[in-house]
Amino acid sequence: MTESAKINIGLLGCGTVGAGVAKLLIGNKQLLAARVGADLNLKWVADIDIETDRGIQLPDGAFINDAHKVVDDPDTDIIVEMIGGEGIAKDLILKAIENGKHVVTANKALLAAQGNELFAAAAQKGVDLAFEASVGGCMPTIKSMRESLVGNHIKAMTGILNGTCNYILSKITDEGISFKEALDQAQNQGYAEADPTLDVEGFDTAHKVAILAALAYGMEINLTDVYIEGISRITPLDIAFAEQFGYRIKLLAISKFLNDRVEARVHPTMIPFGNLLTHINGTVNAVTISGDAVGDILLYGHGAGMMPTASAVISDIVDIARNILCGAARRVPPLSYQRENIRKIPILPIDDLVTHYYFRFSAQDRPGVLSTISGILGKYDISIQSVHQKGRKTNGSVPVVMLSHLVKEADVKQALSEISALDVVSDEPVLIRIEDDEMD
Amino acid sequence: MTESAKINIGLLGCGTVGAGVAKLLIGNKQLLAARVGADLNLKWVADIDIETDRGIQLPDGAFINDAHKVVDDPDTDIIVEMIGGEGIAKDLILKAIENGKHVVTANKALLAAQGNELFAAAAQKGVDLAFEASVGGCMPTIKSMRESLVGNHIKAMTGILNGTCNYILSKITDEGISFKEALDQAQNQGYAEADPTLDVEGFDTAHKVAILAALAYGMEINLTDVYIEGISRITPLDIAFAEQFGYRIKLLAISKFLNDRVEARVHPTMIPFGNLLTHINGTVNAVTISGDAVGDILLYGHGAGMMPTASAVISDIVDIARNILCGAARRVPPLSYQRENIRKIPILPIDDLVTHYYFRFSAQDRPGVLSTISGILGKYDISIQSVHQKGRKTNGSVPVVMLSHLVKEADVKQALSEISALDVVSDEPVLIRIEDDEMD
Repeated sequence: MTESAKINIGLLGCGTVGAGVAKLLIGNKQLLAARVGADLNLKWVADIDIETDRGIQLPDGAFINDAHKVVDDPDTDIIVEMIGGEGIAKDLILKAIENGKHVVTANKALLAAQGNELFAAAAQKGVDLAFEASVGGCMPTIKSMRESLVGNHIKAMTGILNGTCNYILSKITDEGISFKEALDQAQNQGYAEADPTLDVEGFDTAHKVAILAALAYGMEINLTDVYIEGISRITPLDIAFAEQFGYRIKLLAISKFLNDRVEARVHPTMIPFGNLLTHINGTVNAVTISGDAVGDILLYGHGAGMMPTASAVISDIVDIARNILCGAARRVPPLSYQRENIRKIPILPIDDLVTHYYFRFSAQDRPGVLSTISGILGKYDISIQSVHQKGRKTNGSVPVVMLSHLVKEADVKQALSEISALDVVSDEPVLIRIEDDEMD
Repeated sequence: MTESAKINIGLLGCGTVGAGVAKLLIGNKQLLAARVGADLNLKWVADIDIETDRGIQLPDGAFINDAHKVVDDPDTDIIVEMIGGEGIAKDLILKAIENGKHVVTANKALLAAQGNELFAAAAQKGVDLAFEASVGGCMPTIKSMRESLVGNHIKAMTGILNGTCNYILSKITDEGISFKEALDQAQNQGYAEADPTLDVEGFDTAHKVAILAALAYGMEINLTDVYIEGISRITPLDIAFAEQFGYRIKLLAISKFLNDRVEARVHPTMIPFGNLLTHINGTVNAVTISGDAVGDILLYGHGAGMMPTASAVISDIVDIARNILCGAARRVPPLSYQRENIRKIPILPIDDLVTHYYFRFSAQDRPGVLSTISGILGKYDISIQSVHQKGRKTNGSVPVVMLSHLVKEADVKQALSEISALDVVSDEPVLIRIEDDEMD
């Protein structure tokens, strides 16, 4: 490793995160050289918009609108894909790999949906494909799971992995406003997109849990079977009831290893105040990872934003640069396990889930109603550990809230469907899953 | 990297953590092979006690009492030093390095006091010297700072890095008992040593902050100039007052980068409830690291214990094994910066510290006393933002509690010395430093 060693980097896509990567490579160039012992040279920045000033100083001719020129340049060592989406981004990554280049991406949607194909291509060409920034922004999630916990059987992980949803739920919790009002505020603050579906309906979080589950258990990436439920139906009323029972509601990515199957699910979840995740508020992210040796570790940090995400991209660039300098490509297998040890492990269908539930029914306030509801629950073997009936009448109905013991989701659905058909019950029953190891 | 690749490991010291390392290498052997693509073979375990059964199955002749035989074995690739202390452990590490072997250690006392010599020796021989388990047990502290945050100028870090102290402070806080009673409980639970000095007087935490500061800023390790103050004088009364002002008291390792100097200090600290570290209770550890790109990240996990610490040791073993398999020794510089870029950066003397303070005086409850105390504080330019005088009289005295604006420690000491000499003030004044970015 000589002082004159130079690694050439081609950046594709100069949006928010792409521009952050360029700024860090340029602004912290000396720092990176002092740590890596080589010059990380931003040779190319390609974007369809080469007019807008991003405040980045590049040599003449380095800022171009032809991404193919970058991936075809024989002197470029590392391609950093910051375009996003599953179209041109995928084509360019595959072409870069085909050309023997190492690739860094933060493209969780692409990896979750088509990662198996990309990782196979990278393996075949013997190049690295790094993706720390795809999950949890600046949190060292991928590296910790793959390297720091390498000696552990990963048992479970539970994460707040979408800052938009966490901001909205924090707002509803703190201010008692509706989902719609909280979403408006998030949009005004720039924390939610004009079309917020990808975030608030849980899809973005699902992309991340699909990637993490693969890394954790040595399984192929499987987005299709991840259960996904967003936060758009969460009300201040349910949040207030949750609080009375000692819980807070968070949109969680949950994954557990069950030997022959794994859980991988995304949904609003009630967690007890003793859980550190209840204290993670606003746009930040956090994830708890449980291993057989470590017990629980928790990571916390900005899950999005220009510079935090760029910091994670830089850590991938440096990892690959170090591999290049040592001739050690693919020193760590991208998906944590050697390829021959990666299996297909089925994801548990949500109907087979066994957990605790919170139910809220809008029931007429008259004798016999509670007994009717309880009777139906009993018929489906749903045993209840706590019932709460109070609050003001709305259209002649009062909220009846119940917490269940451990029961199976398929039974819950049948019971709720039957209860919902009762004349004395108005509105759809509300169901929120609970994660609480202390409950019976 | 062939299927038959084998890395031979020699473990020196089979106490609690050493036995944990052996258990993980043996129990999770298949998992490690599936991830690393090689056999991590525990060839030797050396300990002065080879009679006690640790529940570890080793081949005949592998468990020996001659550590020198292990470090001299030409077929052993990695030496894992789990003996502790600065005597024989240092000799064996130096001999292993001299013999061209890579070394893993968790020996924070040795690294903090004599690490510069050890890292120089490892550099000269071109071998790795890894130490993830020396700070924060299973938390990926070293790897995160060195690799995940590689693109960041580290600005500061704040850590709860000693589980014994955190357990004791949590007990005093929750139960209102004295330090002595809480220490007794910690000893009964096995969370504190018979001689607890190393933990409760802050020395163990100081070892860790000395190591982290070196990694963070590219400076030589300097334990000598770290300011160290333990928790033995913390009372339930001060904890209760802190709570009234919205603070909790934690033993913190604090380090900040001030361009030409760094702060590196260990002392009981008041932090506001909004800080996640106030929620870290019991024996666990947590550290917040601030970088110019990431903002703050927080890591949380078991800072001690057999298996959590062993997990961190295994991550080092795997890192080195991967380097061996790829011929990439010293791929990452152990102290985060290339050696030629490591500087001596002076640590700010504690007298030059400028921060907020909590004072508690035992003053006679009569007119003019508060004015006398305030007059002395004013003389030394110590401006007070909050005064609290109430509570019951003890021997004719009442507690007077004050929070200061930003003031210099040298001035505080002079003022407190003068106040302490007043006839109307009994007992030594209490001083607790505050870390609160929101304060004026």
